[in-house]
Formats: sequence, structure tokens, C-alpha cells
Amino acid sequence: MSKLPIVDGIIDYIKEDNVPFSMPGHKNGRGFLTTEEGKKLYQSLIKGDITEVEGVDNLHNAESIIKESQELLRDLYGSYKSYFLVNGSTSGNLAMIFSCFNEGDKIIVERNCHRSVFNAIILKKLRPIYIKNIISKAYNAPFSIDMEHFLKIIDEHPEAKGIVVTYPNYYGICTDLKAVIKRAKEKNMLVLVDSAHGAHFGFSSELPESAVKLGADIVVMSAHKTLPSLTQSAYLHVGDNIDINKVNFYVSAFTSTSPSYMLMSTLDYARYFMETQGRQVFEECIKIANIYREKINSLQSFHILSREDIKKEFSGYNYDMDATRFVIHLDNNYSGHELLEYLRGRAVQCEMSDDSNVVLILSPFNIEQDYEKLYYALKQCPLEQLKTDFSRVLINDLPQTAMLPYEVMDKDSFQVEIDEAVGSISAASIVPYPPGVPIIMPGEIVDEEAINMIKYYLENNKSVLGVNSGKKILVIKE
Amino acid sequence: MSKLPIVDGIIDYIKEDNVPFSMPGHKNGRGFLTTEEGKKLYQSLIKGDITEVEGVDNLHNAESIIKESQELLRDLYGSYKSYFLVNGSTSGNLAMIFSCFNEGDKIIVERNCHRSVFNAIILKKLRPIYIKNIISKAYNAPFSIDMEHFLKIIDEHPEAKGIVVTYPNYYGICTDLKAVIKRAKEKNMLVLVDSAHGAHFGFSSELPESAVKLGADIVVMSAHKTLPSLTQSAYLHVGDNIDINKVNFYVSAFTSTSPSYMLMSTLDYARYFMETQGRQVFEECIKIANIYREKINSLQSFHILSREDIKKEFSGYNYDMDATRFVIHLDNNYSGHELLEYLRGRAVQCEMSDDSNVVLILSPFNIEQDYEKLYYALKQCPLEQLKTDFSRVLINDLPQTAMLPYEVMDKDSFQVEIDEAVGSISAASIVPYPPGVPIIMPGEIVDEEAINMIKYYLENNKSVLGVNSGKKILVIKE
Repeated sequence: MSKLPIVDGIIDYIKEDNVPFSMPGHKNGRGFLTTEEGKKLYQSLIKGDITEVEGVDNLHNAESIIKESQELLRDLYGSYKSYFLVNGSTSGNLAMIFSCFNEGDKIIVERNCHRSVFNAIILKKLRPIYIKNIISKAYNAPFSIDMEHFLKIIDEHPEAKGIVVTYPNYYGICTDLKAVIKRAKEKNMLVLVDSAHGAHFGFSSELPESAVKLGADIVVMSAHKTLPSLTQSAYLHVGDNIDINKVNFYVSAFTSTSPSYMLMSTLDYARYFMETQGRQVFEECIKIANIYREKINSLQSFHILSREDIKKEFSGYNYDMDATRFVIHLDNNYSGHELLEYLRGRAVQCEMSDDSNVVLILSPFNIEQDYEKLYYALKQCPLEQLKTDFSRVLINDLPQTAMLPYEVMDKDSFQVEIDEAVGSISAASIVPYPPGVPIIMPGEIVDEEAINMIKYYLENNKSVLGVNSGKKILVIKE
Repeated sequence: MSKLPIVDGIIDYIKEDNVPFSMPGHKNGRGFLTTEEGKKLYQSLIKGDITEVEGVDNLHNAESIIKESQELLRDLYGSYKSYFLVNGSTSGNLAMIFSCFNEGDKIIVERNCHRSVFNAIILKKLRPIYIKNIISKAYNAPFSIDMEHFLKIIDEHPEAKGIVVTYPNYYGICTDLKAVIKRAKEKNMLVLVDSAHGAHFGFSSELPESAVKLGADIVVMSAHKTLPSLTQSAYLHVGDNIDINKVNFYVSAFTSTSPSYMLMSTLDYARYFMETQGRQVFEECIKIANIYREKINSLQSFHILSREDIKKEFSGYNYDMDATRFVIHLDNNYSGHELLEYLRGRAVQCEMSDDSNVVLILSPFNIEQDYEKLYYALKQCPLEQLKTDFSRVLINDLPQTAMLPYEVMDKDSFQVEIDEAVGSISAASIVPYPPGVPIIMPGEIVDEEAINMIKYYLENNKSVLGVNSGKKILVIKE
């Protein structure tokens, strides 16, 4: 055991000197070094790790520099009020759900929501109604919400207080948010958007529109994912129809009272950078991305998804895709995971993989050399190394609910063999990775279809969260 | 308005080049530069701001380097399990209270608890019974819990599930935690300790014992306050009688799923530093502190509190004091606030002030020159500049409770003149700063005594949180 396991692990990783096609958006610090202001910030970052001394304001009662900076953020994104978050989009998701809903409220939520959304549902004791995700057969991945199912759900549950959607998802794919908002507003429902991956949206016509501009009532953005700010820093944008006193309370409650000035000053910088150069640098980024998309698409067995692919795949609705995300799709029988690993061996760090795809997050701070490295690594890729037993993404019909998620928290539970679980109430989420879409959520009844799916993923050597090494799952003691 | 308000504000502050007697514990980065390992960390800090790539583990499901480092932390402090917190002691206080208590539980809690403790009481819908704080007449400040009141309370409420105490408080003063734990255990109550200011305790016999060693069931420590780690980083230590599954869930729920590796690697470093050098460097720090305590005490009108002062002040119980905290007490009619401001003008940054005292946080990374600067600034201090209308800290008897704090959250409220508020239920905390001890908490009935106190503090030009500029307070609409 190392005496400094984390420090040593990080230093070892830095030594690999990988091309950064993963988070955070500043790409190894490069994002701070392209401007004079950023260089000054970079130089003073650690010395600037100070506490709330006179003159530097207080995040929890902002009256001077933090207030000013948050107002500039509000003006840039066009919200009613905007907040800096130093506890990530996680705290934003918690705060927005706590602010908008009361205990016992029914809400409509994407099945494949972020864990923090589901945690908020438990902590606030809400009644979730899930919108199914849709599977792209062509790309063998869950790509967005099933709009038909959403329209059915929203008609069936007119008493729901609001809906929570992800825009875009991890693949950079955007649901038809404009249509979702229109429909929700007709039903007097609030629209809460987890736009963790969309902080750069709306800065160019080449990018999807920002969720704030499309009229969402409250929007969370992980600044750190795509902008030059430090990991764990995020933005929350609130509309004028939301109770600001509640938002103030919950944002504060879920945030350290010793917030990092390092994180806050990079949130200030990221806003400034986007305001002054956002459009230009993102358009340049998209230009170079498009060039390499074509080059890579000319290679055998690789295909990078485009806006056009998505629009064709989901015709009838206005789906869209982030032009700064590469989803490299592989032909059948080649594994996305193997490709991610191969690229890491070639010093190219990707963001994530599933069975058939690898996802890369591009940024204005990726230089041409980065793309060249990626291109040549792909060109030289010995495809036979990527061969795998092919497995197809399956998604089941949603199981019956026997208990609300929060009710499960107080129940006794025990482990049971998968085959013996039929009819039991699950005490855990059962989620195959990939694709990360839950088969069963806590409080739902384990049915035959669910068991068959769990077994399918296990037989295909997928990791299934919620299934222990003895192939048992946790169910409620009745 | 500056185009980069926060970045510019921080850089301006750095330019002042103040002697660091405030948080964080690394003192402008010095804490990382006294060892070879720390220098390597410092150099790689920003580049090390990475995401959960292969090889660097995942805080929310720690299996390799983060798990190893947390185990080393556990071994060092002697807990059953220890956690890294990247959302400060705030998230630790939330997680420990959520893990230990169920909705509706009665708990005994220090009146002057941290805001996050009170927020947890609201969010978890607990029934708080407050322990009064005790005022030191000699030092004109609230110094600890009133042990007599605690013993009365614990006898009156045997059904309480646990108690939450602060150890030490902001002044570095420690209640008789051993006696508190003994009494609570006799009553089968859990003892939860907010030891935000005590991460360095127990590393020398010159320091108070650590709350973990004294047998507390669960303990939160702000590593960043007194150890070489970045602001917002903290530790949580859990005993073997606590439900670890619950702690895992709540720590995770209140923590960003994109936790900062910068924060985590400094938590790793701070643990390593304390393990290898903690005793030695803190004993050296205390040695030099003692020398300058004497020197400063020889100056007219300044007196730095010592362990002996505290023991004399609170005889009968085993109170204690942190030897690495300077509480500079001023003679009557001199203002602590004015002294803090004067010292800042002399480039000495203190941590906080009240009417009669200034608090400084000393660390092994303060060099002799820092103390010299402090000493000469005090020696040259034109005392007449510090003159003020003297006001005495008052603490009222605890008001009657009409409603639980969380119940207030859903009620309509309105502003009313202070004088007209008698008999109303407060919808807000009313807290004079200093001393920061609440006069009224949400749900409590505003009585004559409370109104007289509020007026006393306002007449003495103290800021009273919860009283607006029109001298109105928020009460429940009935």
C-alpha cells in the first residue's frame, strides 16, 4: 500500500500524458492558459484558496463580488436568478427538486435520470412516474426519452406537479425539449432540466439551444464538464415563477459553508470566457471536429454520430445532438470498452464506453494534434483486438410499483437468489452498466421479464449494479 | 463592475500579502511546501483535476486508491470507518444526523450549533431540545455549553435518541466531552460531534483529546481548517455501532458525483502529513505560540486566553482549550472588531472577532516572522482607535416552542414590528452577530425577554440576522 495512494495515483496518471477527450472542460489546465486573465487566475489558484475574509464576499449571503459575478452569469444565460454551485450538479438537482415539489407530490421523471435526481426523490418523499428511455437499434444504446411514452404518461397523470428531464444525455443527444416544455406547460407542470452536459449550449447556432432559452423553469449545468472551470463546479439557473426563498434555502443547505474560492473563481472565469469568446472558440472547435469526423468516418468499422444521424434515427420529433461530442460507433462484434482501453494505451483518454460505442468530450482546448493522435490511433487499430461476444441493449417494460422509493429506506431486507425473486419487492436499484438504464428501481416488483434481463446481462459478463457476487438481489422482508 | 469580480477580488487580496492567521490550515499553500511529497502534490494540483478515469478509483464506490487512503485515515484516527468529504463539514453534519435519527426523533442539541446541524434538523424533521450556551462574563463571549443545563435536559428527556455537540467551538474552547459522552451513554443516547475545528486534536498531549478517541459515535472534522488540505475538504469518522449502509447512502447523497481530485488528494496528503509529522510540528507550533502568548500578554490591554484561564473560568468540569488558537481578549471599551480591522491594515489576517475578542488560528505553517508581525502590530496599536461603546453579551432563557422548525417551512409568514411581535411564532432565526447565539429559532414564541434582547443588540449597533432594515421580523400567519 502506498503511503499517499491518491496523490501517487494522480501523479502516475499525469505522467501518462494522455490526450484529454474526457472531463473536465479545462483539459489539464489548458483552458485557463489561452487568455491573459486565465493565466493570472492559474497562477493564483492555490494561493487564492482563502476563507471569507473582508472584501471577498460570502457565497451564502452574497452582497459584493460573488453577487456581481452571479448577476453576470444570470445575464449571460438569460435566467431570472443564477447560482454558483461548488458541490456539483448533484447539489443543483437536489436543490431544484426540493424547491419545486412538496412531500407526496407526483412527478414525471426520465427513467435513466442521474442518481442525484433519484436521491432527491427519496429524500423529498416524492411519487415518481417514469418516462421510458428509447433504444437505438442502429447504435445499440439508450439514446433519449421515448416521446410517445412521455405523451401517454403526461395524459395519464395530469395531477403531476412537474417533470424532470436530462438534456442532453451522456451521448450528447438532446430530446425534443421544446416539445416537452410546450406539452408540460399546457398541463401546468414545471419543467426541471438536468443539463449537466449542456453548459455550452446556445453559444452558437451549430449547437443545440440552451435549456434556459427554451423556457425550462429551472436548469442545472455542470460548468466543469464542458467549460474552463474546475471539477465539481456548476451553475443553477432559476426562472421567475420559482419561489426564490426556497431555492436560496436549499442551495445553501446542500452546500459547504466553507465553499472553495478556487472553484468559485473558475466559475467566474468560465462565465467570462464564454461571454467574451464562447461563440468563436466553440465554432472553431466544431469546425475541426467536423473535419476529423469525416476523416474517421472514412476508416473501416468506425462511424461518428452526427446531428443528421440522430434526426434520421428519431424522425417525427426535433431531436438534436451536441456537435462537440464524438460518439464513435463500432460495427457489430467490436467492443466499445475494448476500444476505450486500446485508445488509453495509445495515450488518448476517452470519456466513457458502452458495448458498441465510445464517447469523447471535445472542447475548444483540444488542439489539432489531439485529433491527429486520435485519428492515427484509430487508423492503426488492430480491429481483431476489439472483438467481443456481442450483446444487445435491452430495455424492459416498466415493472409494477408496490412501494415508494423512500418507503423502502425504512424496511428490513434480505438477499435472495435471482430466480427466487419473482414477485418480491426490490430493495435496491438493479442497473446493468452499460447501458445504465435501471431494470428495477427500489419499491418495484421483480417480474419474470426483469429476471430474464438481469440474467441476460450477467451471461454477457456485464456488471449489474444491485446484484451481488453470489448472484443475489436485495428484496423487502414482508 | 469588474468583468471578473471574483478572480480580481481574490488577486487583490493575495497582493495584500497578509500574514495568515485565518483558515485554511495550509496557510496560502505553505502547508504543501514543507515536504518533498507536498511539493510534488502542489506542482500537480491543477493538472490533477481529473475525472474518474481507469486507475484513480471512484469516491462513491471506492475500491482502490481512495479506499486505501480512507483506510489509512481510519487507522490514524481510530474510527470504525472514515470518509473523505468534498462538500465540507456541512455535508458531514447532514449525513451523520440523517444516518443516526429517524423522522420525529427528539434530539438534544447545542443552541449555538452550526447552521448545517440546524438545516439537518429541518430536513429530517427532528424535534430539537436545546442546550443553553454559557456566557463568560470575564471574556464577554459565549464559550461553551452550560453543563448544568445539559444535565437537567438529559434527565428531562430520556426518550431523546442522541445529542449533537460542538467540540471545540470557534474560540477553540472544549466542553467536557468525556463527561457528556459518559452521561449520554448511560441514557443510551448517541453522541454526534461537530469537531469541525478539531482535526488536529489528539496528536499531542498539549492538545485536547480527539472526539473519536473520547468515544463519540460519529465525528465530523474540517480538515481544511487546521490541516494542510484545501478549503471545503473534511473527514467523517464513524463508530462501529452506527448503520454503515445508511452512512454510505447519505454521505453519497450529499456529495457531488464529480468530486474534486484536487480536494481528495489534499485530504490524502493532510492525513499523511499528520501521520508522519503531526506530533512534532504541532508541538513546535505550540512552543512558539506559548512564547508569543507571554510576550503579547505583557502588552497593555491584551490578554490571550490559556487552558488555565478556561479551567479557572469553568471549574467543576474538565473544560479545555486548543493551544493553537489565540483568543486575544481586550479590556473593556476596546472593540475586537476594530482590532481585527487594524491588524488587517497591518497585513495580519485574523479569523474572526466579537465585541471583546479577536480569534486567530495558528498552524505549524506559521513562521516566527508571522508572530513577530502580530506582536509588533499589537505593540504599536493605538488603543484609542479601538474605543467603542461597550456592549455586553446577553443570552436569554430559551423561549417556548410552538411549532417544530420543519413545520415552519410550509407556513405563510409576514413581517411585523418588533414591539408588536410578542406572542407570535417566529418564522426565522433571530441571531445577533456577535455572539452568534440564536435569541429565537423558527417555531419559537417571541416573548418580552427576547424582544428586549433584540432591541439591546440593535441599540448597540449589532447586526441581528432575521431582523430587516425596517426593524421588522418574520412571524407565522395564524
